[in-house]
Amino acid sequence: MTAPAFRFELLATDGAARRGRLNTAHGSVDTPAFMPVGTRATVKAMTPDAVRTTGAQMILANTYHLMLRPGSDAVEKLGGLHRFMDWPGPILTDSGGFQVMSLSSLRKITETGVTFRSHLDGTAFELTPARAMEIQRQLDADVTMVLDECTPFPAAEDVAAKSMRLSMRWAELSKDAFRERPGYGLFGIVQGSVYPELREESAKALRAIGFDGYAVGGLAVGEGQEMMLRVLDQTVPHLPADRARYLMGVGTPSDLIRSVARGIDMFDCVMPTRSGRTAKGFTRRGEVNLRNARHALDPRPLDAECGCLACTRFSRAYLHHLFKAEEMLAGMLLTTHNVTLYQDLMAALRAGIEAGRFTETAALWESGLSRGDIEPL
Amino acid sequence: MTAPAFRFELLATDGAARRGRLNTAHGSVDTPAFMPVGTRATVKAMTPDAVRTTGAQMILANTYHLMLRPGSDAVEKLGGLHRFMDWPGPILTDSGGFQVMSLSSLRKITETGVTFRSHLDGTAFELTPARAMEIQRQLDADVTMVLDECTPFPAAEDVAAKSMRLSMRWAELSKDAFRERPGYGLFGIVQGSVYPELREESAKALRAIGFDGYAVGGLAVGEGQEMMLRVLDQTVPHLPADRARYLMGVGTPSDLIRSVARGIDMFDCVMPTRSGRTAKGFTRRGEVNLRNARHALDPRPLDAECGCLACTRFSRAYLHHLFKAEEMLAGMLLTTHNVTLYQDLMAALRAGIEAGRFTETAALWESGLSRGDIEPL
Repeated sequence: MTAPAFRFELLATDGAARRGRLNTAHGSVDTPAFMPVGTRATVKAMTPDAVRTTGAQMILANTYHLMLRPGSDAVEKLGGLHRFMDWPGPILTDSGGFQVMSLSSLRKITETGVTFRSHLDGTAFELTPARAMEIQRQLDADVTMVLDECTPFPAAEDVAAKSMRLSMRWAELSKDAFRERPGYGLFGIVQGSVYPELREESAKALRAIGFDGYAVGGLAVGEGQEMMLRVLDQTVPHLPADRARYLMGVGTPSDLIRSVARGIDMFDCVMPTRSGRTAKGFTRRGEVNLRNARHALDPRPLDAECGCLACTRFSRAYLHHLFKAEEMLAGMLLTTHNVTLYQDLMAALRAGIEAGRFTETAALWESGLSRGDIEPL
Repeated sequence: MTAPAFRFELLATDGAARRGRLNTAHGSVDTPAFMPVGTRATVKAMTPDAVRTTGAQMILANTYHLMLRPGSDAVEKLGGLHRFMDWPGPILTDSGGFQVMSLSSLRKITETGVTFRSHLDGTAFELTPARAMEIQRQLDADVTMVLDECTPFPAAEDVAAKSMRLSMRWAELSKDAFRERPGYGLFGIVQGSVYPELREESAKALRAIGFDGYAVGGLAVGEGQEMMLRVLDQTVPHLPADRARYLMGVGTPSDLIRSVARGIDMFDCVMPTRSGRTAKGFTRRGEVNLRNARHALDPRPLDAECGCLACTRFSRAYLHHLFKAEEMLAGMLLTTHNVTLYQDLMAALRAGIEAGRFTETAALWESGLSRGDIEPL
């Protein structure tokens, strides 16, 4: 069987919102799509089957974490990430740049790349555009991300410009080093902080190089939703319509809805999984803290409209008990619920776009999310 | 539908080993049976579905932990343990006596019962035989255990005698207070430390009261397997043949095999679940520490003959990675494997007894367990 070409199909639009499909070596992904984060080759607290059951079709894994442990050589020897972690579907890996900036020590950025020491044991590593491509090839990522420098926030315009232009040079070197294979794609990353001219310059630079998809990076770093959406308004029009658009590291359900409205196709965020381990549940009526004592005797499900394991088989009282008792099942069930809620939201947005009713669908979910939790018993 | 009577059927014997079936209000249990421990209304790191998939038919929950949090009133209001934790099958609860001795503070034992303070928040509690019955009724346990004093080990004979006789008086009070309902049973607990005369006296005292099943308590507390088996040899002959026999808190695979050989029908132990969280895997070739670096690049399953999720879908290398990275999935997968191994062992022993080949089956597993792990790659 020949692997299909890496291709983004635009199936329908409704305003700026897009309904599409990303075809990769390991299958297709209906967009707009949310990718659960499997940092170290596991979506925390979930089996791969449980992840699939939520409706998720594609996941993200972190190059930085995996190059440190178990190492990209080890993952390659063990058959690549799909086999290693038993996720046969599409996988996107980031380039490692973001975690190098936030986690490693003694890092030094030069024109050629970044050197740093592992936060685990101090081992020295170097990440260049070419090395980032090689590592992601060893991991067998369906979508490889170019190496970029994650511009700090806030950044003065001259600092942001310098950083963005370095990332653009690295993007070109990444493209040069990327080994083309059927079904595998390379995404560029737009930088430029909150400066419209820089974002435009970055988008145009990437288009000139030519990528299989375009990510918007450097957002959800503290600028707030309003600023983030403004940057999207200024950036997305400069991206080609026939390629997937990926907003990195975003976000809340509201962030997703409003970004889809602006033409974003793909998302990833640790929010549903991390919140699942810290008792924060996302529901169709907003966020719920399951440690709150008012749930202690509540026999109702967390979200009555949700079909996940946690909501169909257990009460709020039980989830509350598990969190109070610090049982692993607490995080397992709530993570499953949160990822399911995110997938249900994306499925609803996709259906809304197909039906030409995106605005109504978005409004319905937004108003639900702001309704507040159900009445106490 | 009328609930069936609580009844133990003896289906076959092979030497002293027994193949039976325990019928309860929430279904039947094929014996010899191993009950995974769901201390605080959850078998740690497993969903109820995952527990069922291992072949487990009955689980144990701890009265002490549940009376403290969420409280037996809460569990009763929420429909009982089966509904609370989504385990529709049989549940056995201990009486709380063991944990009162090992976990609580300021405990004071009198003729009427024990007062103590919660290890969680210092709240004062009292546990009498009647109260232990009431709490377990609220929890809706299919098998209720009498309140007993767990005799410390080692104990001088006069101390052990005094403790055992108190437990026998409590056993009678427990029986008086136990509310009979179809499908629900009450088990007595033989005490007497390592003294044959005391064990015999205890067994006879319990038989005179009359119980639906008989547990052997006060073992696996540091006396060693040889001494434990000697106590079984001296105790089991004094138990009635037509009632289930339950060895509390035991044990290793070898302990189970050798105790079944002596006529024990039921077991519980935290060993497979606790070990699953600390990287110790039980296999058909003995114990394996998955943190060991020799697994780092090993693509083979933990136990090639095991059909569990961990062994059919993941490599030793991946399990090693998960433990090194301290990912929750590590404990989830290895617990699933260990409980499956225990259930496979019990199923094999049951089949061996049915076929009149118990000795061969037991020897096969014992020799496997002492073979040592597979060769390094």
